[in-house]
This record gives sequence, C-alpha cells and structure tokens, in this order.
Amino acid sequence: MATLGMVEYQDASAEVREVFDDIMATRKTDSVNNFWKAIARDPATLRRTWESIKQVMAPGALDALTKELVYLAVSTTNQCHYCIASHTASAQKKGMTKEMFAELMAVIGMANETNSLVSGYRVEIDEQFGKTVW
Amino acid sequence: MATLGMVEYQDASAEVREVFDDIMATRKTDSVNNFWKAIARDPATLRRTWESIKQVMAPGALDALTKELVYLAVSTTNQCHYCIASHTASAQKKGMTKEMFAELMAVIGMANETNSLVSGYRVEIDEQFGKTVW
Amino acid sequence: MATLGMVEYQDASAEVREVFDDIMATRKTDSVNNFWKAIARDPATLRRTWESIKQVMAPGALDALTKELVYLAVSTTNQCHYCIASHTASAQKKGMTKEMFAELMAVIGMANETNSLVSGYRVEIDEQFGKTVW
Amino acid sequence: MATLGMVEYQDASAEVREVFDDIMATRKTDSVNNFWKAIARDPATLRRTWESIKQVMAPGALDALTKELVYLAVSTTNQCHYCIASHTASAQKKGMTKEMFAELMAVIGMANETNSLVSGYRVEIDEQFGKTVW
Amino acid sequence: MATLGMVEYQDASAEVREVFDDIMATRKTDSVNNFWKAIARDPATLRRTWESIKQVMAPGALDALTKELVYLAVSTTNQCHYCIASHTASAQKKGMTKEMFAELMAVIGMANETNSLVSGYRVEIDEQFGKTVW
Amino acid sequence: MATLGMVEYQDASAEVREVFDDIMATRKTDSVNNFWKAIARDPATLRRTWESIKQVMAPGALDALTKELVYLAVSTTNQCHYCIASHTASAQKKGMTKEMFAELMAVIGMANETNSLVSGYRVEIDEQFGKTVW
Repeated sequence: MATLGMVEYQDASAEVREVFDDIMATRKTDSVNNFWKAIARDPATLRRTWESIKQVMAPGALDALTKELVYLAVSTTNQCHYCIASHTASAQKKGMTKEMFAELMAVIGMANETNSLVSGYRVEIDEQFGKTVW
Repeated sequence: MATLGMVEYQDASAEVREVFDDIMATRKTDSVNNFWKAIARDPATLRRTWESIKQVMAPGALDALTKELVYLAVSTTNQCHYCIASHTASAQKKGMTKEMFAELMAVIGMANETNSLVSGYRVEIDEQFGKTVW
Repeated sequence: MATLGMVEYQDASAEVREVFDDIMATRKTDSVNNFWKAIARDPATLRRTWESIKQVMAPGALDALTKELVYLAVSTTNQCHYCIASHTASAQKKGMTKEMFAELMAVIGMANETNSLVSGYRVEIDEQFGKTVW
Repeated sequence: MATLGMVEYQDASAEVREVFDDIMATRKTDSVNNFWKAIARDPATLRRTWESIKQVMAPGALDALTKELVYLAVSTTNQCHYCIASHTASAQKKGMTKEMFAELMAVIGMANETNSLVSGYRVEIDEQFGKTVW
Repeated sequence: MATLGMVEYQDASAEVREVFDDIMATRKTDSVNNFWKAIARDPATLRRTWESIKQVMAPGALDALTKELVYLAVSTTNQCHYCIASHTASAQKKGMTKEMFAELMAVIGMANETNSLVSGYRVEIDEQFGKTVW
Repeated sequence: MATLGMVEYQDASAEVREVFDDIMATRKTDSVNNFWKAIARDPATLRRTWESIKQVMAPGALDALTKELVYLAVSTTNQCHYCIASHTASAQKKGMTKEMFAELMAVIGMANETNSLVSGYRVEIDEQFGKTVW
C-alpha cells in the first residue's frame, strides 16, 4: 500500500502549517502522523477533520482514555489497520495498560460475535428497549 | 423481522433453565432478554455464549460501564439494531448519562469517518506505531 | 422500510416475464420473491443477476445446501435482514436441519469474533500460509 | 499477503485468453491487472465477472467517471485496499482530478460518520421517505 | 426501532433552533428530517455535523447530484436503512432519474462483489497502482 | 503491520503451554499459528477462544470442511486477511479442492453483491419468510 503523496511540513502552505502547528501544540509532540500529512493534500478536509477530532476527543463526560478505547473498538471492527496502530499508541499514551488492552479486545470480540448471532437468529427487540429513560 | 421461535422459561429444558437462572441471578432481573431466548434453541451456544459474556463483561481492568460503551461502539458500527437497543439499556443501567451517550456517539462517528479517510488516502503506518511499549 | 415499487407479473414487460418464468421454472415455484420483483425495475440488472445466481448456486464441486449455508454466512455478517430471511428459507428447503442451523450460527459467530481479535492484535500472517498447494 | 497463484497470458487456456483479449481491447491496454489474472484460476468466474463489469461500467445514464467514483466509495468503505488502488487509477484515467478526489473522500467520510450516528441514535425513517416518486 | 427521543422545533433551545433554521434555509424546506431532530439531543454534535455536511455536500469539483450518489453508495454498502431512504429522496430532488438509480445500484452491487473476490483470492496490488499521477 | 508481541512456547507460562499443547495435540501439528501466540498475551482470552473454537469447529451436524468454508466466507466478507490466509490453509487440509474454492468464492461474491442490492432497493421481507418451519 502506498500513500498518494503526503504533505511534509517544509513543503506545506501557510494554511496547512497552521493546522499542523495546532496538532503538535495540542498533542505536545514535534511531528504529525502520516494521517494528517496525507489528508493535508486537501486543506479543507484537514482543517475540518482536525477541528472535529480536537472537539470530540477532548475529555468531557467521558475521559480521554475511554474515548481512545471506543475509537479502537470501531477501528478494530472495521479492520482499519492504520487506525488500530495509531489509536493503540494514543491509548497507551493516555494510560491503557496491557490488562486493559486485553479486556478491550475480549469485549470487542464478543460484541462482534453476538452482533452476528443476533442477525442470524433474527432476534426481535424486546419491548422494554424501546423506552427512553432520559 | 421475525424471530425463528424463542424458548420461553416454562418450555425450557433443565439445561436451558439452568443458564436462564444464572443470567437472572447475575443480572438481578426476573426475566431474560429475547437474545437469550432465541439462542436457547441451541443449548450449547446458549451456555458457551453466556459463560463467555459473563467472564468478559465482568469488571476488571476496565469497569463495567466502559465495557458497555465499547460494546455499543461495535454494535453501532455494525448496524446491529437489536444490540444497540439492548446495550444502550444496559449502559444506562450501569450509569451512562445522556452527556456520556452524546460523546460516545460523537467519537463513534468520527472513528467511522476517519477509518474511511485512512483507507481512501491509503495512509501508510507510521514507523513508530510498529513498536511495542509493553 | 418501503420498497421503491415492485414489478408484479401481470404488469411486467415481456423481457421481465421471461426472467420471472425462468426463476419459477428453475425453482419449481409459482411466484417470485420480492427481491426479483424489486430489481425488475431494471430489467438489465434482473437478467444479469438471475443468470449469475443460477450459474453460481447450481450444484457443482459444492452441493446446493453448502452454497446456501455460505450465502447465509455472508448475509448474517453483513446484517442483511432480507437476505437472512430468504436464504434461511432456501436452506431449509434444501435440507438444513435445526441442528445444522445452530452449528452454522456458532461458526459464523466465532469467525466474526476472531476476525476482530486478529485485527486488534495485529497478527502477522504465518509464513506457511503464503504458500500455494494447488 | 500472497496471491494464490495468478494465470499469466502465456500460460492461459484459449478460454481465458479470449477474456484477457477482450479486457485489453476494451480498455485499450496491453496487459491485464492482477485481479483478472487471479480470478482466471476459475474461468467461469473470470468470464461472468468480466461480462458483468463490462456491462455495468459502460457509460449510460451515468457517465464512466461517476461510476468509478461510486466504485471507489464502496471499496473505501469496505477497506478493500486492492480495489481502492486499482479504481483510483481507473478514475484518474477517466478524468478524476485531485480536487474531485478530495471532495469524494470528504463525502465518503461524512457518509460513514452519519451512517453510524443514525444507527446509534436509532433514527426512525421519516414518513415522506417511504414514498416513491417514480 | 424507536428513536431515543427527538427534539421538535417548538421545544428546541435557541442554539438548536439556529441550526434548524439554517438547515431549512439552506435546503429550502420548512421542516427538518428526523436525523437532525435526533442528534439535536446533543447540540454540539448537531452543529458540528451540520456545518460539516453543509461544507462537504456543497457543489464544487463534484456536483451536488454526484455527491448524493456517492453518499448512497456508502449507505447501501453499510446497510444503513435510514440513510438509504433519506439520500434516495435527496438524490431524486437533485435530479436522479430511475435510469441513474438502476445503474448506481448495479455498480454498487458489482463493487461489493469484486471487493470480496479480491480479498478471498488475496490479490496483490499491481506495481503501477502504487504510483501517483498528481 | 506488526504484531504487538507474540508469546513463544519457550517463554510461555504453564497456563499458556497447556493450551498450546492442546491446540497442537488436537490439530496434530508441532507448532501453533501466530493467532494463538498473539492472543496468548491474555491467557484468559487464549483459553476461552480455544475452548470455543474447539467446540464449535468439531464435526457435528455440519462436517469439518463445511465449517471451514463458512469461516472463510465470513473472513472474506470482513476483509480479514490473516483469517483468509489461515482458513484457506485449514480448508485445504480438510479437503477443499481448487474447484470447491472457486465455487466458494463465486457464492461469496454473489452474496455480497445481492446483499447490497437488497439494501439499496429497500426490499421488504416476503410474508412467507417470517414463518418458522422447525
């Protein structure tokens, strides 16, 4: 698999550099991952995606580590190898231990298994699940 | 969508009742969800799936609520409507607030978005993500 | 969910009727399923899909029942509720017993579980799997 | 990842060569892609797939470029790396500019994001969407 | 399937109404779809998603109809029934004829078929696909 | 893609070795695949997954080869490259001929195609498919 051509900092436009600078400042690192360099080919997508990620992944009602675990669950289910690699690294930075990783994987595995059992057995939604508690 | 025929407690074999009893005791409820009644058509799958779920979803390095959020992330990504309904209910029982739900959905949405961007842009895995910290 | 409008036999063009007739003759039934009535809105897709299905699902190195089980495995994994319902019925017609169905579901569930474990654990392909035996 | 063994032109049967020749003539190239060489191991699948692709991808109510963009959208969503690589190349040949590619990716990303939001929020289909205009 | 509770205009906060007003003005309609009412439970997600959709779906290098077709291709592949229904309606509004719809579906079907053939046959990426033309 | 670190037999705990020994004895081989070495990082998942796989893949109402074909159908649909490689090898060991493989792929391809056609055409489930024959 080959990238379509990434935008390196030294070759980036002022617009792209501004986003790269914000990524590095927010994440306290001195480089940006290939994902950002790749989508930097489209500055509008770069800015929109970064602004969204920054807003969505910031700690709130859920802490930053829980958000990384959720990200990893989606990426693992989608077989997105890059995302699994990068978010495993992010989750580790935010405190994921190997015990947490092991349990995370076990839950993801069970969820994927039962999701398919539910569809194959054509299980109808229990009446009580249709009710809202909030 | 119609279930293939569920096994109700009163019609269940001793083997199935034993599992149903354990589900209700573990979950402190007096009924079992349609999922269990549906797969009870195959007692071996019922027992194996329940034993696995009980082991995997028990609090450990990750607490029970975090595990429900991860389950919901997988089910949402897979478009498994039954699983979304049942695990939203479980997560609520274990303390998911509407603020948590909102943030959970936002993260799931971003992860699914970026997973597809990564594949379309054919992003190569950064060298440092190949390293193990544990 | 509402169909976009199905083509009923009495309203069908000669071209569509010819395909419907062949479906009914091949399957020894006196009606066609909603799937065929729906895609009959596009006679070219109707004909191409039917010709392909007829060729692909005919018994060969794999018998007709095995092919139905495989179809069901794909449909279950994709959460395609219509396909699950229709191919469960076809498989039953071709001899799928409830014991077979139970084992089929168990295998599908395990495969979906381990597929996600493999991606999350980032398992590398064993050298010997790269070799061709044929 | 290793292919299971591809069929090269010089080793191909007359039946396979006939399809290869038609692929090259239709596409005005002097070689066939690995995809065709791989499925040529099964001449029936080779012929059926090629005839279908030729029919489906020919310009009609939708032009050839639009069809390539749609193909790329599916392949990107499915994380099919080969298909992404080959259909990015085809789309480029048919006129996809880098601006088009950037917008295509942005739409694919948003669609995957909102698809998961819809399932997690369990949004019911608006009554008016059930109506057919054709 | 039941929504978790939608936010109707008359009950909406000023913040939510502002977004609803912009949706209706942009789309020249006098109501908003269930999707927006559902995610309005989280005003931050509502605003972010709407701003992104508005930016991404606006005509640019790709026209508005092509973008709808791509959206529909992703939603069809993901089995997102709501999204299929709503984007079929949007595409129709923007000029999708039934001939276009038929060809769109045929391409989506072929892409999903060949995506799985590629993975099962383990096809290696052709060298020339790794090259960038832009 | 790099594994997170596999557990080799000589470094394994007694608990892990016991499972490895059972895998090798059951499969009549003198080594275990990378999958088992990878998940051995979590002995609980290793044991649970192996016990489940052993139970589920044992011949019963379905023979061992049919179960491998179903596994391969799921893995191919999910684009799980490792699983495709390993289960192609297992299926070959259990008697899958190249003719069977070719037909298997053709069925998987058609199922993925028609699954998407069904969702895009929004086909409603035929009344008779809601009935249970068992």
